Amino acid sequence: MPRVFSGIQPTGDPHIGNYFGAMKNYVRLGEEYGKDSIYCVVDLHAITNPAAYDPARLAERTFEMAVANFAAGLDPAKVTFFVQSQVPEHHELSWVFTALTPVGELERMTQYKDKSEQLESVPAGLLMYPVLMAADILLYKADTVPVGEDQTQHIELTREIARKFNHAYGDTFPEPKAVYAKDALRIPGVDGHGKMGKSKGETSTLGILEPLDSIWQKVRVAPTDPARVRRTDPGDPDKCLIGDYHKLFSDRPTIETVYAGCRTAGIGCVDCKKMLMEGVRRELEPLQARAADLRADPDLVRDALEQGAKEARAIARPVMEEVREKVGFLKAR
Amino acid sequence: MPRVFSGIQPTGDPHIGNYFGAMKNYVRLGEEYGKDSIYCVVDLHAITNPAAYDPARLAERTFEMAVANFAAGLDPAKVTFFVQSQVPEHHELSWVFTALTPVGELERMTQYKDKSEQLESVPAGLLMYPVLMAADILLYKADTVPVGEDQTQHIELTREIARKFNHAYGDTFPEPKAVYAKDALRIPGVDGHGKMGKSKGETSTLGILEPLDSIWQKVRVAPTDPARVRRTDPGDPDKCLIGDYHKLFSDRPTIETVYAGCRTAGIGCVDCKKMLMEGVRRELEPLQARAADLRADPDLVRDALEQGAKEARAIARPVMEEVREKVGFLKAR
Repeated sequence: MPRVFSGIQPTGDPHIGNYFGAMKNYVRLGEEYGKDSIYCVVDLHAITNPAAYDPARLAERTFEMAVANFAAGLDPAKVTFFVQSQVPEHHELSWVFTALTPVGELERMTQYKDKSEQLESVPAGLLMYPVLMAADILLYKADTVPVGEDQTQHIELTREIARKFNHAYGDTFPEPKAVYAKDALRIPGVDGHGKMGKSKGETSTLGILEPLDSIWQKVRVAPTDPARVRRTDPGDPDKCLIGDYHKLFSDRPTIETVYAGCRTAGIGCVDCKKMLMEGVRRELEPLQARAADLRADPDLVRDALEQGAKEARAIARPVMEEVREKVGFLKAR
Repeated sequence: MPRVFSGIQPTGDPHIGNYFGAMKNYVRLGEEYGKDSIYCVVDLHAITNPAAYDPARLAERTFEMAVANFAAGLDPAKVTFFVQSQVPEHHELSWVFTALTPVGELERMTQYKDKSEQLESVPAGLLMYPVLMAADILLYKADTVPVGEDQTQHIELTREIARKFNHAYGDTFPEPKAVYAKDALRIPGVDGHGKMGKSKGETSTLGILEPLDSIWQKVRVAPTDPARVRRTDPGDPDKCLIGDYHKLFSDRPTIETVYAGCRTAGIGCVDCKKMLMEGVRRELEPLQARAADLRADPDLVRDALEQGAKEARAIARPVMEEVREKVGFLKAR
């Protein structure tokens, strides 16, 4: 049976790039695969990046990431949604894989090289990150992994680890395949400096849980097509990040109106931005209302996560039992 | 309160070097520290060494190592004795430490350098070994670690990891100290080629669970002081491994008899070896009888190990709870 696994970084407030790229995809896959779509907030991974990890905020960000996904339409009753650190089998499998994976292959990972170059002292967590990631996926014998293209190499390593385990201990794991949500990768940052992403800080991002006037403040000053110096200059909406955002948030008639209006200088950039905000409001207002309801009842969220961890362990435990026996760990009675 | 931790490699049949060096020491410490002497058969470590690890035999060797220690006088009702893979908290803490430990420090470990030099492809398990070892010790907040001198550097790293954690998250772990059983390290192999040890294979070792006639076959052909070419040549028992073994197995009058007899050529090497076997028989026969009883009731052994794992987790769980909260993992309700 096909099974989807995806790890979600506990960054707290996901931005609209995450939302259109990953989260909506999770909802769609959840409708298709039900409980066999497995989503995991990867707080164990979060502690490996000294630049992004803050112990005082990790629990809150983990909680908020659950809230965001539930508010975005992921129904914890229908999919499997949990927090990684609540399922200790991830560690157990990761250690077995650690014994199988050559140091050299981990050192060759592009992401490791990029991240470690910027650090004076490189924590071993950065090196071991892709081994834990392989364990995340294979613990559920998942065959389908929705990821960004920057994870291609890690998925290839996961496939190699699966092959190595199968070769050493007999056929056990599938070789999972990455699936990409390509559109998402092209969402530009609102500051006009390339792709939207947390690495550039909050000036580039529009958070889906961000108050709408805060979003408006960023949109209001966002750069548009530089050819439109004066109100009467025509512009090219395909060269404008507001044009890109309209494609995400606005309905077809609005898109046609603003694209034509821009090209003919029929509307100004401020009007265009105000019309964008209508779509933003339509998309995010109900989402933020659901998030507020969830935050008002934190025990409900925690219960859902605990139930999710139970469901995840119900899949993970028999897999680990199989692994433990093959590897030769003494069985408890 | 002082607390002792020691990890025991599941090598199956421990040799007399292990017995006089470590196991008897465990019994003595067990009498002193009771349940606060914590002994762990480290099967998770065993899988990191491709040269020594055999999946088909690991469970049996783990079981046999428990049998050997119980037969040697370690009472599982009085100490805490368990199998590492049955306490998943070792992994959890190990991952937290992985995020704290620089790759460079692990690469500098002498044991890692020695072992990896001999391998074409170096598994990451060898590199991460000392991090798991630090977790083994600190999971119980142990302050005293009986080890061989080859572990000095790993214990120093454990102390450094404790300091790092305490610095990052607030005072949590003690800085444990190594204690050495120095005599043990000098026990020569019965083949006359240096220290007794598994790395030289079974030709160098006398197993404490080895049948006595197998032991006799090895002792019978063991080299003695090369100065004693003829029966009538006097020898120097201090240059003879049989002389060393007498110090372990024989009573004082026997030692005096054979040492004087050797120096005066009053007794021959065969007589000396036969007198040694009396002491070997006195020490190992009851031990092997106890081992046979234990093997005849494997459920008893497994139950003792499971009970040990429960006791270990009763200490480990609150420590991990403290760690999880400090690190920022979201608490399950």
